[in-house]
Amino acid sequence: METTRYEKGIELLEKMISKEIMAETIEKVKQFSPDIARLIVEFAFGDVYSRPTLDLKQKELLTITSLVTLGAESQLDFHINGALNVGLSPNEIVEVIIHCIPYVGFPRALGALQVIMKVFEKRNVKLDSHIK
Amino acid sequence: METTRYEKGIELLEKMISKEIMAETIEKVKQFSPDIARLIVEFAFGDVYSRPTLDLKQKELLTITSLVTLGAESQLDFHINGALNVGLSPNEIVEVIIHCIPYVGFPRALGALQVIMKVFEKRNVKLDSHIK
Amino acid sequence: METTRYEKGIELLEKMISKEIMAETIEKVKQFSPDIARLIVEFAFGDVYSRPTLDLKQKELLTITSLVTLGAESQLDFHINGALNVGLSPNEIVEVIIHCIPYVGFPRALGALQVIMKVFEKRNVKLDSHIK
Amino acid sequence: METTRYEKGIELLEKMISKEIMAETIEKVKQFSPDIARLIVEFAFGDVYSRPTLDLKQKELLTITSLVTLGAESQLDFHINGALNVGLSPNEIVEVIIHCIPYVGFPRALGALQVIMKVFEKRNVKLDSHIK
Amino acid sequence: METTRYEKGIELLEKMISKEIMAETIEKVKQFSPDIARLIVEFAFGDVYSRPTLDLKQKELLTITSLVTLGAESQLDFHINGALNVGLSPNEIVEVIIHCIPYVGFPRALGALQVIMKVFEKRNVKLDSHIK
Amino acid sequence: METTRYEKGIELLEKMISKEIMAETIEKVKQFSPDIARLIVEFAFGDVYSRPTLDLKQKELLTITSLVTLGAESQLDFHINGALNVGLSPNEIVEVIIHCIPYVGFPRALGALQVIMKVFEKRNVKLDSHIK
Repeated sequence: METTRYEKGIELLEKMISKEIMAETIEKVKQFSPDIARLIVEFAFGDVYSRPTLDLKQKELLTITSLVTLGAESQLDFHINGALNVGLSPNEIVEVIIHCIPYVGFPRALGALQVIMKVFEKRNVKLDSHIK
Repeated sequence: METTRYEKGIELLEKMISKEIMAETIEKVKQFSPDIARLIVEFAFGDVYSRPTLDLKQKELLTITSLVTLGAESQLDFHINGALNVGLSPNEIVEVIIHCIPYVGFPRALGALQVIMKVFEKRNVKLDSHIK
Repeated sequence: METTRYEKGIELLEKMISKEIMAETIEKVKQFSPDIARLIVEFAFGDVYSRPTLDLKQKELLTITSLVTLGAESQLDFHINGALNVGLSPNEIVEVIIHCIPYVGFPRALGALQVIMKVFEKRNVKLDSHIK
Repeated sequence: METTRYEKGIELLEKMISKEIMAETIEKVKQFSPDIARLIVEFAFGDVYSRPTLDLKQKELLTITSLVTLGAESQLDFHINGALNVGLSPNEIVEVIIHCIPYVGFPRALGALQVIMKVFEKRNVKLDSHIK
Repeated sequence: METTRYEKGIELLEKMISKEIMAETIEKVKQFSPDIARLIVEFAFGDVYSRPTLDLKQKELLTITSLVTLGAESQLDFHINGALNVGLSPNEIVEVIIHCIPYVGFPRALGALQVIMKVFEKRNVKLDSHIK
Repeated sequence: METTRYEKGIELLEKMISKEIMAETIEKVKQFSPDIARLIVEFAFGDVYSRPTLDLKQKELLTITSLVTLGAESQLDFHINGALNVGLSPNEIVEVIIHCIPYVGFPRALGALQVIMKVFEKRNVKLDSHIK
């Protein structure tokens, strides 16, 4: 029997985020609007995130870049957590912010940095001698 | 003697873009406003693009993601060319666009795709059996 | 005697929002800067919102779409309340968010959804069997 | 046998746009990247545009609002044509632009207006005594 | 007899732009949609641009900054011309672009620069020894 | 001995913001990521903000305009404070918001106004008979 798009999406999400964040985010949306939850899981994760060509680490780098550029700070902690969970180092995550500065400017970069600082503090994650 | 930030920036640019594109872009800016050209070379390329932690391929993936998200189509061909020059495959470049769809929507993705199609056609580059 | 643009704006606002929200928003702006309050009432509501061709329900659907696309979450609860007050159903309001997903992506849609969930909870409004 | 998401999307598109525009847009994308074309047809049109709750005219009003707010001028003519095809009047389409002014400002409104003027001229469509 | 908002707007516009640009822009909009033209003249120029507190030069600096930040390149030449007409020097105009770089990034700055270069070339305007 | 770019940046910052805000912002970033703090000080303040051609008051007007247009509300209080510190009047600061309305719309203007109202209240600053 073929895996459905929804199952593929959930499988992917379970690699990226903890059960706590799953409950706080996807489940909370599902209780309010099952349709929106289904579209996220099926399309964003089942169709797109589970594609080949780029690996999960690369995908999280791209997602964070896009969210930083949008200024979508309220959606960023989900993917900062996801990035750490799929094996990106704290330095790689902060490096994304630095790399974005010439393209998006400091306000978007600093807005994102505040989210990163909170997630890192909560998970007790530290930058490794982050000096050039 | 230490390499200046400007020299580091130019060195980096020479890896990324051809002399023709250098002349069409950086040099054209330099003739009009030497200060702006200098700030691009020193800051965007000398300070930021030449940092360690991420490699040139990763950086071009991030830059394209940020430009797609901004809808900065007029600045995109420079980096599509750069991405091909540093060794990204056509499929990886198009995959960035696909990965961005859930974050930025189809209008930004399709606007970017038009630029990619032109650059690929001009360089006679083709997608490799781009079917999932 | 002709109705002034300001009077037309206030008349329109009284159809859209409760006295409590009027006091929290328009009046608070007026105490700080009477000019800004006057420009909002006269232009946004007196000139534009009170035009014919589209009805109030259609206008609220468009306004919410524009705010979702902008990511202007802090200004959204005013118009979610307005949309309910002019007779749009909870399902129609959530449907706007779903319709926007392919154009603006999930981050803007989910940011808006958080505001909608709060307003609906506060007003004890529920989606009607929101399953396709 | 159940209609696939792709078939539902194509069915919807055939109501909205002419065969000429279909060929210029969806087919052109399909030749370059079949995956992107499939995601547009299946998700944007099969999943989202074909939902109930709002009718096709309302959906085109929302789509135009979102594109105007984004400043996605290069993607706008597709939906201005679609809006006329599903039965919106020229005045209703221009009214969307006017309604957006207080939310997005004049630059986005005027950028969109240029696209509308071109589509209307090409289709020989005129505003009906567009004076308040 | 009191000056109307429309007359105040036209008076202001006549200080800012040449008859040629007036015809190309405001008049062209007016022929298509008299309502939109009236809202621009009355609100943007009659109400807002003709306010005291800031002078015309300051206002053009702010307008250009906002358009650069929006990436509204198609609306920028109107105000680059306006800025020169109210007495801003070419160097002050380019300085706005440079000042914006840390806030909006290089893509928006370079997109705007292309418009400035065209307007300056058309008017045979040159930067004055633009080297720090 | 030549002043370094970092020293020039710090010197400029000391004119713009109080020691308290310096500690809350730049120092907090520095403790987390010394590289990002250094890039802000060297590039945004040492290279760009300390340029001639425009004076500090003009620069703060432009910066606020850009932040309002971006909707970067979380970064705005820093520069509202900076604007007051370099001698702009409360009325001039609010006038920037009013001038931006036709370019960015009311949602961005009102989002910014909320930040201004908080800063003015905290510093006990009032508008001077802000009636046209």
